[in-house]
Amino acid sequence: MLKRRTDLAVEAKRLWEESAAQQTKLEGVESVESIREGFHVSTVRILNDAGAQALGKPPGNYVTVTLNGLKRREADAFDRAARVLAAELTGMLKLPEGATALVVGLGNRAITPDAVGPKTADHTLATRHLVTQVPEHFGSFRPVAALAAGVLGTTGMESSEVIKGVLAELKPACVIAVDALASRSLDRVCTTVQLADTGIIPGSGVGNHRAALNQETLGVPVIAVGIPTVVDGATLCADLLAEAGKGDLEPELLRGAGSDLFVTPRDIDASVADLAKVTGYALNLALQPGLTIADIDMFLS
Amino acid sequence: MLKRRTDLAVEAKRLWEESAAQQTKLEGVESVESIREGFHVSTVRILNDAGAQALGKPPGNYVTVTLNGLKRREADAFDRAARVLAAELTGMLKLPEGATALVVGLGNRAITPDAVGPKTADHTLATRHLVTQVPEHFGSFRPVAALAAGVLGTTGMESSEVIKGVLAELKPACVIAVDALASRSLDRVCTTVQLADTGIIPGSGVGNHRAALNQETLGVPVIAVGIPTVVDGATLCADLLAEAGKGDLEPELLRGAGSDLFVTPRDIDASVADLAKVTGYALNLALQPGLTIADIDMFLS
Amino acid sequence: MLKRRTDLAVEAKRLWEESAAQQTKLEGVESVESIREGFHVSTVRILNDAGAQALGKPPGNYVTVTLNGLKRREADAFDRAARVLAAELTGMLKLPEGATALVVGLGNRAITPDAVGPKTADHTLATRHLVTQVPEHFGSFRPVAALAAGVLGTTGMESSEVIKGVLAELKPACVIAVDALASRSLDRVCTTVQLADTGIIPGSGVGNHRAALNQETLGVPVIAVGIPTVVDGATLCADLLAEAGKGDLEPELLRGAGSDLFVTPRDIDASVADLAKVTGYALNLALQPGLTIADIDMFLS
Amino acid sequence: MLKRRTDLAVEAKRLWEESAAQQTKLEGVESVESIREGFHVSTVRILNDAGAQALGKPPGNYVTVTLNGLKRREADAFDRAARVLAAELTGMLKLPEGATALVVGLGNRAITPDAVGPKTADHTLATRHLVTQVPEHFGSFRPVAALAAGVLGTTGMESSEVIKGVLAELKPACVIAVDALASRSLDRVCTTVQLADTGIIPGSGVGNHRAALNQETLGVPVIAVGIPTVVDGATLCADLLAEAGKGDLEPELLRGAGSDLFVTPRDIDASVADLAKVTGYALNLALQPGLTIADIDMFLS
Repeated sequence: MLKRRTDLAVEAKRLWEESAAQQTKLEGVESVESIREGFHVSTVRILNDAGAQALGKPPGNYVTVTLNGLKRREADAFDRAARVLAAELTGMLKLPEGATALVVGLGNRAITPDAVGPKTADHTLATRHLVTQVPEHFGSFRPVAALAAGVLGTTGMESSEVIKGVLAELKPACVIAVDALASRSLDRVCTTVQLADTGIIPGSGVGNHRAALNQETLGVPVIAVGIPTVVDGATLCADLLAEAGKGDLEPELLRGAGSDLFVTPRDIDASVADLAKVTGYALNLALQPGLTIADIDMFLS
Repeated sequence: MLKRRTDLAVEAKRLWEESAAQQTKLEGVESVESIREGFHVSTVRILNDAGAQALGKPPGNYVTVTLNGLKRREADAFDRAARVLAAELTGMLKLPEGATALVVGLGNRAITPDAVGPKTADHTLATRHLVTQVPEHFGSFRPVAALAAGVLGTTGMESSEVIKGVLAELKPACVIAVDALASRSLDRVCTTVQLADTGIIPGSGVGNHRAALNQETLGVPVIAVGIPTVVDGATLCADLLAEAGKGDLEPELLRGAGSDLFVTPRDIDASVADLAKVTGYALNLALQPGLTIADIDMFLS
Repeated sequence: MLKRRTDLAVEAKRLWEESAAQQTKLEGVESVESIREGFHVSTVRILNDAGAQALGKPPGNYVTVTLNGLKRREADAFDRAARVLAAELTGMLKLPEGATALVVGLGNRAITPDAVGPKTADHTLATRHLVTQVPEHFGSFRPVAALAAGVLGTTGMESSEVIKGVLAELKPACVIAVDALASRSLDRVCTTVQLADTGIIPGSGVGNHRAALNQETLGVPVIAVGIPTVVDGATLCADLLAEAGKGDLEPELLRGAGSDLFVTPRDIDASVADLAKVTGYALNLALQPGLTIADIDMFLS
Repeated sequence: MLKRRTDLAVEAKRLWEESAAQQTKLEGVESVESIREGFHVSTVRILNDAGAQALGKPPGNYVTVTLNGLKRREADAFDRAARVLAAELTGMLKLPEGATALVVGLGNRAITPDAVGPKTADHTLATRHLVTQVPEHFGSFRPVAALAAGVLGTTGMESSEVIKGVLAELKPACVIAVDALASRSLDRVCTTVQLADTGIIPGSGVGNHRAALNQETLGVPVIAVGIPTVVDGATLCADLLAEAGKGDLEPELLRGAGSDLFVTPRDIDASVADLAKVTGYALNLALQPGLTIADIDMFLS
């Protein structure tokens, strides 16, 4: 069992390996590493309860894409990043042609690191009304609805209540939920996107806006798109110590000190804007395979 | 029958009187004028179908408050304006103690004159979660949920679809829907708030985001709070001509010319911000009679 | 002499022609019409005092580009618009290689139609510090500084005072001043950009933030980039009447009525965002001939 | 000499005391603690070179006000905080009646923790133009100009270049420069304001936008208003370790690891908004002694 909490399966696996005795084998978990479009892609498959217990996450597929080039603003990085995320999403979605999708941005727009979900929804092409109202132009588009669910503190409603209500009216074939995550590694903050076909498990992330959103609670498949935008203070400290060669402190030992502090890098505003845009474009490419990035530019600019 | 369209009952009544022969009496309509907290309050009651047909609006109560002092930033104007609107809202709401209310901001945040609804929702205290989660402090508060419903172009869903879904989860005792309106008078733009207990009738206003929201469609009473933030080009022209003594042109004759143009005053950004704030505070005072303006400042600042 | 005021030379010329007797010739003014990159380009040259008096503008070159496709979001319209504006700017700038340019955005960020200047400055690549600090990468760039000068009401200083102070420190070879204008035609609002090598003449436009900015007052050439984002109420009315075939009213006759009202189209937020971006990109292309639109995307995104 | 860098004199003094041998006395430094308006006020006076060398700061007065109540949104906290800051500023300013003051907001609006300076300038009443243009109403006001100086990356000019240029035009009697600082203590981030009559020393803070701004470089007295909105990662780590009783690590030992990381609390958006508003109001109260908080509300809302 993990002593350190993380929202990322790829981190959970690494923590297990660090903490396990050498000869122990991680049962019920498969993983594959690859390079696609120049980015590192790590796929972790939790196959059964043994794997789920070891990593503290439900069985399913977790794909982590590391978008280093994006932050360095390398030429072409945006387009490649959108394409690699779109390809991975397409593999998970398995949507019948013409089936409706609902994209939900979770989190609080007024808190920068928590705004990545709502901002991704802003970059998502809402097409559901066009497909029915202007079929001569948009008949070949997938119907997509996009929503920022708000947060309990400003709406008085759980995100899950809003989503359930909308689902009853909309009856989509799947939900794609985009949310900010907490990472335990400085390196992963604002450089990583995790896709999971298991939905979103409550209890972590930036805000407390998350009741469980998954096939069991919503009745349709839920693809979770998680973007680490914060790291907790205790973890940060343990990382800095380790990097400086000052030993291996358990972050748990620091809890109760500045424990609840979540920290963000200084350039969080620009990072959240970039990540929301590339994720929104990836959703559009995956949901509307007939469109190019230039097409999306034209619709959304 | 009216030839000129207006969202305001008080304007509809004046247009009827201007167009009717002198001896004709307006049947089925009562009206009262008064001054409260220093502001002009005009109440129009449409009593029956005769009145409804004459004014082109469903039977019910329409209260128009003229907030001139607010724009001139007179001392104390904000507080008085919040109180007068709250008093009129209280008269219409007739909510049982402890019954839940849902405040919905209609319109598009990205278009300044259409943003007055969503911005009012931002200034509304969402208390529903506090009443149940922290009853020791908030047990005496009315449960209020607040929502910006988004617009078809960005969500792919009608506001009415989103609201119906949320209603099914929330089961409130009433809905308060805040929206931008079109006025036919320059003088009323950004200086007037209309309260109506008839819900919102589709087809007018700034955007096209309004399917009917009323007791019939939603199953609960709907109080409409309408705030004129635009005037249409043809009406503007007729008004300017009349003011300059250049005769009495029917705006309808200009339709087809620059007809669809809606115009806003230059200081629309500041006006929308002011009106949304005062309306939100008025909602809070009406829904939470135990709070003062200073209390609301503390919760919302 | 013109009875109707307009910020656009192309409108001033048309008004002169409408008001002049048939046989009169407009002395001291040359004009050329052309199509470039698919857009209509109209060049008016005021050659001498006779022309200046007739059109109410100082001698110099006025280029008006009509960007219709941009508003309709035609494929490729953004790139073509940036290129046509850049080509016309390049013709006017005549800057020695390596000479410093100062881009100034005039107007009030908090008033949507007046924000087009400051927002254009946001899209301008500031390179002056890079040229000196990182010469190995940016040595071939032109040094450009970019500034939003603020407005009297929020700074307590005239834009011209701020600019003069900065000029003394910066000593640029030219100033490019971007500002919102008033048009007298509905058709031109938010579809037109005027370039002029005569500087900016005070007294018109959206705000009152403009003391004269020209070679005489600043000591360096001043290229004015004017973007009409408002039309005044009286002019709107005259236009609507004319379009509807209801006669030819002089807007001046309506002054004193709703006279001071400036009106904006409803989609002003999106239009100002689009125009500021395309103008900023055009400035970058003209000032840094080595860059492509894709390069600028990378620097500014 | 201090091994740990801090922008706050009060922290520098504590660090000196922690590091010094017991019997050593801190020469050339006086300090006074008091409670005013319910807030803790700490005044450090660096009297001479010995004190300056010990604390790493130039001789002068440093007042640190701890605004704990503000964050907890205690009733009346805003008003009390504005008053205590205004009283301390008044003591430092020593401005002749009618002398002009220039308020400069330093930092980058686009980076939340760095935006506290520009946002404070937004809350400052610019009165210079009113005093001369409307003397019948504003003749008794002090002429104040307010400016956000921008940052090198977006303007291509150093803040100091912009300010020097403006000074030459404006000739004010003093400059008040508001900037974000780095604290070495989690407790002080977003709860503290430091006033200093020594100007601003380059090299620390959130951004790199600061060349020295002081009487020597600008020719007039410079009051620095510093607001800690970030804490550096290494310091955070040392603090967490100490609080958890895990020993006394020198943050310097962690430099080179995640060293350059500056971190902000999660609610940085709200904190920066609150601090900028209260600081702006304090400036207004100090500069315009005839005004009340309610008056300022009316001018700025």
